[in-house]
Amino acid sequence: MTIIAILGGTGHEGSGLGLRWAKAGHQVIIGSRTAEKAQSAAIELNAKLGVTSVQGMDNLAAAQAADLVVLTVPYAAHAATIESVRTAVQGKIFVDVTVPLVPPKVSRVQLPAAGSASQEAQTLLGADVKVVTAFQNISAEHLKDPDHTIDCDVLVCGDDKDAKTTVIQLAADAGMTAWDAGPLANAVVPEGLTSVLIGLNMRYKVKSSGIQITGIK
Amino acid sequence: MTIIAILGGTGHEGSGLGLRWAKAGHQVIIGSRTAEKAQSAAIELNAKLGVTSVQGMDNLAAAQAADLVVLTVPYAAHAATIESVRTAVQGKIFVDVTVPLVPPKVSRVQLPAAGSASQEAQTLLGADVKVVTAFQNISAEHLKDPDHTIDCDVLVCGDDKDAKTTVIQLAADAGMTAWDAGPLANAVVPEGLTSVLIGLNMRYKVKSSGIQITGIK
Repeated sequence: MTIIAILGGTGHEGSGLGLRWAKAGHQVIIGSRTAEKAQSAAIELNAKLGVTSVQGMDNLAAAQAADLVVLTVPYAAHAATIESVRTAVQGKIFVDVTVPLVPPKVSRVQLPAAGSASQEAQTLLGADVKVVTAFQNISAEHLKDPDHTIDCDVLVCGDDKDAKTTVIQLAADAGMTAWDAGPLANAVVPEGLTSVLIGLNMRYKVKSSGIQITGIK
Repeated sequence: MTIIAILGGTGHEGSGLGLRWAKAGHQVIIGSRTAEKAQSAAIELNAKLGVTSVQGMDNLAAAQAADLVVLTVPYAAHAATIESVRTAVQGKIFVDVTVPLVPPKVSRVQLPAAGSASQEAQTLLGADVKVVTAFQNISAEHLKDPDHTIDCDVLVCGDDKDAKTTVIQLAADAGMTAWDAGPLANAVVPEGLTSVLIGLNMRYKVKSSGIQITGIK
C-alpha cells in the first residue's frame, strides 16, 4: 500500500486515478486548493466505492502526508502548485500528469521552452525529487468507470529507474499497461501526444483515442 | 499512379518504402548522392519484385522528375540534401521521414531548436512546398519484406490538408494505416517517438516496437 496524494485531485483525471487506486487498496488523499473542495471529492469517491479510506486535504497537507505525490492540474496552475509543495515533496516520487496545452489551440503541440512541463517541474523541485511523467494520454472518461478496460498504454519517463518501476506498478494497479519510455527528456512525447490525440478525436469524431505499443506484447 | 522520388533511397527505410510503392504500381525513382549507387539499388528492387519500373538517379535529377519527393536521409545530411533540391521541389509534396537523432544517445529525445526536422525542412524549402511528416516510426526491417503485415500506424503531420490525404493514401498503398495527426507543429511527436521506440527495443529486448492508435478503429 502506498499513500498517494493527488494534487488537483478534484478534476476528472485526478479523481479517476484516485478512484482506481483506492479500489486497488492504496491510501488516496485528494488534494485541492481548499480542504473543503478536496473533502467533498473524497466523500464522493468513498460513496462510489463503498469505502471510507479516501481523504481530502489542501494540496500542501496532502503532499506532506503522502509517500508519493501526483500532480493533475491545468498547465496554468502547474508552476504555482509545484512552488507551494516544493519543501513537502523533497525525497519523494512526484508524478507529473500535466500537459502543457495552450488554449484555444489544444490540438496543436506547443511545448514550453524547457522542452516539457515535467522538465520544468524537475527544475522547480530540484534534484532530490524523483520526477516521473505518466498518464497524460489516458481518457478521464474511461478512468472514472472502474470497470472500463483501458485500451491506452502509459508512457512513463523519468531519470530514476526505481521511481519508474513504482509508477509502472501503480499503472498496473489501476488497470493499465505502462512502459519505461526513457529519461525525463523524453516527456515531450507523451505530453505532445496528448494534443495529437485531442486532434484525432476532433477529426475522426471519436471521444477517447489512445495509443498502444505494438511489437512487445 | 504517382511518380515518387525517394532521396537517400538506398538506405533501409527508403528502399523498403520504394519496394512497397513499386509493388503497388507507383513509379519509384531511387535518389542518392551518386546516380551509380541509386541505379544499383534500383536494379536490386526491380529484381526483388520481378519488374523493370524502378529507376535510379542522383538526388537532384530524382527530385526534378518526380511529382512527390520523399526524404529518407540521416539527420546529419538533412539540411544539405534539402538545399540541393530546393528549386526542384517547389510546388510539390515533400514527405520528410527524417528523425533528428543525436548519436550516440539515440534513445534520448533531442529535438532541434526549430522544434522538429520537418519544421526545419519547411523553413529551408519555403511556403510553396507542401511539407508532410510521416513514416518515422515504421521498422525498416518490416518494410523490406512486402508480405510482412505492419502493425505500426503512421502519424501524418502537415499544414496542407490535401497533401496529407495523398500521403495517407500512399501509406495505405504500402500496407499501413495512417492518421491525420495535425499541423506540422505536431511533427515533434512522431519524430520524438522514434527515440522512445528505440529505447523500448533496447529495454524490452525486442526489434521493432511500434504504436497503434486505439479508440478509433
